[in-house]
Amino acid sequence: MSYVLFNDQITKREHVNIDMEDRGYNFGDGIYEVIPIYEGNTFAMEEHLQRFLESASKLEIKLPYDKTVLEQQLNELKIKNKVINGIIYIQMTRGVSPRAHLYERNVEGLITGFCREMAFPTEQKLAGVSVLLTEDIRWLRCDIKSINLLGNIMAKRKATDNDCHEAIMHRNGILTEGSSSNLFIVKGKQLQTHPPTNLILNGITRQIVIKLAKENGFTVNEEAFSMQQLLEADEAFITSTTQEITPITKIIGDINATFPVGTITKELQHAFKAFIDKETK
Amino acid sequence: MSYVLFNDQITKREHVNIDMEDRGYNFGDGIYEVIPIYEGNTFAMEEHLQRFLESASKLEIKLPYDKTVLEQQLNELKIKNKVINGIIYIQMTRGVSPRAHLYERNVEGLITGFCREMAFPTEQKLAGVSVLLTEDIRWLRCDIKSINLLGNIMAKRKATDNDCHEAIMHRNGILTEGSSSNLFIVKGKQLQTHPPTNLILNGITRQIVIKLAKENGFTVNEEAFSMQQLLEADEAFITSTTQEITPITKIIGDINATFPVGTITKELQHAFKAFIDKETK
Repeated sequence: MSYVLFNDQITKREHVNIDMEDRGYNFGDGIYEVIPIYEGNTFAMEEHLQRFLESASKLEIKLPYDKTVLEQQLNELKIKNKVINGIIYIQMTRGVSPRAHLYERNVEGLITGFCREMAFPTEQKLAGVSVLLTEDIRWLRCDIKSINLLGNIMAKRKATDNDCHEAIMHRNGILTEGSSSNLFIVKGKQLQTHPPTNLILNGITRQIVIKLAKENGFTVNEEAFSMQQLLEADEAFITSTTQEITPITKIIGDINATFPVGTITKELQHAFKAFIDKETK
Repeated sequence: MSYVLFNDQITKREHVNIDMEDRGYNFGDGIYEVIPIYEGNTFAMEEHLQRFLESASKLEIKLPYDKTVLEQQLNELKIKNKVINGIIYIQMTRGVSPRAHLYERNVEGLITGFCREMAFPTEQKLAGVSVLLTEDIRWLRCDIKSINLLGNIMAKRKATDNDCHEAIMHRNGILTEGSSSNLFIVKGKQLQTHPPTNLILNGITRQIVIKLAKENGFTVNEEAFSMQQLLEADEAFITSTTQEITPITKIIGDINATFPVGTITKELQHAFKAFIDKETK
């Protein structure tokens, strides 16, 4: 991780200094994206950058330069760091100003980014994972991919403490999503997942899975579901950029349940793999 | 603001560099306090540092050195910056580690702090302020004084856009607090304010006002109240370290109301001023 993105420059990591009054540091006033790299090629870059712009717009932070320049810089970052399989992380904060709650509208954001090798979770995709079901304590604008992530990281910590791979969350018994993933259930030939409201982050992988499921003859119901519906599901899985499609085999916490690594989940994994191969070749 | 606190050192601001993978910068994974200075003396330092430790404990971040050392350093910071009336800002993040949701427990935090002159709001305390009543969209751990402040700063922005000094917030019609203040109403000889649950930050000024009110013969009801009760109140005011006791004279937004600068509010302002004078002389 020797080269990083700082504003519009690719530079050595040791040359980057963040100010102690960067609003990202004092208020979590910023946004981020994680873009995967497969065999040297980025995947769904356009979709991630589009969502980056949408998050920026919701927080009224202005991209300091054109999106096409940003895309070029991220590709350059990938090449300079010689990453073959891994991720690009990019964030933008509202930059530096004397600490005060009131923010200035549409000031140019401060961009930082890095690129690193990361092993995608082969074993977990095959064998499935245990998840902890816990209360969703986050704010009501989870549609913004912001760096206000305390609710998420506290859920993740709790999951790990309970020997679980991930935390999935509910608000008053209605399932929302994972701490860094979206949640799907399968019943018969139908997938169900929370609609893309203010209560979840509309994952890029989530969107691709919905598209692929429909293409493969499944129906997809984007309607919130209850713990009871989760208990009655045939299969359950989580999706995210780094976890792709990972089956849930066990739930502990606010309910207890077990699931097989289901045939429809496996079919979607294959379709997803084929889609990545097609898009990154 | 030439001298700042960085870890355990008082140093020039230009010598401070925050890492781009400080967890405060990537996750808002940190806490803060604001301590007032009156005529060269800090006020309620002990109470603020105690709450700082409580927030740290809730997030499982360890203070890197003893609280008495921190107190000495903050006093040194005040002296070096020659601040007579103003504030000390201090924050502690979980420090630097390769970005991942899962946090390590009880690692030593990274402390930054600054000290600056600030005029306390004389005019607003006399004449009162307008506030915007809006939905509380924040997370369910507002008892932690964390740097995950997007919900707060968005409310503040909205208040300013509506020519209001502050936003006060409600969850489904139940009043919680302001974007950077606590909220009180007065009815007859009784004060009412939200109890110190997970839904509000238990302000130091809030606690002092409750104590002073009781000493001055008022009853204090720490029970949540509705918009209807707010409408029926005789007086309303907000409290915070920087705003002290500021009367609300007008509410717009989800309800419309006007209030006088009430006699009980004024009596509490005088008692608060006398208490500051006593404690800082």
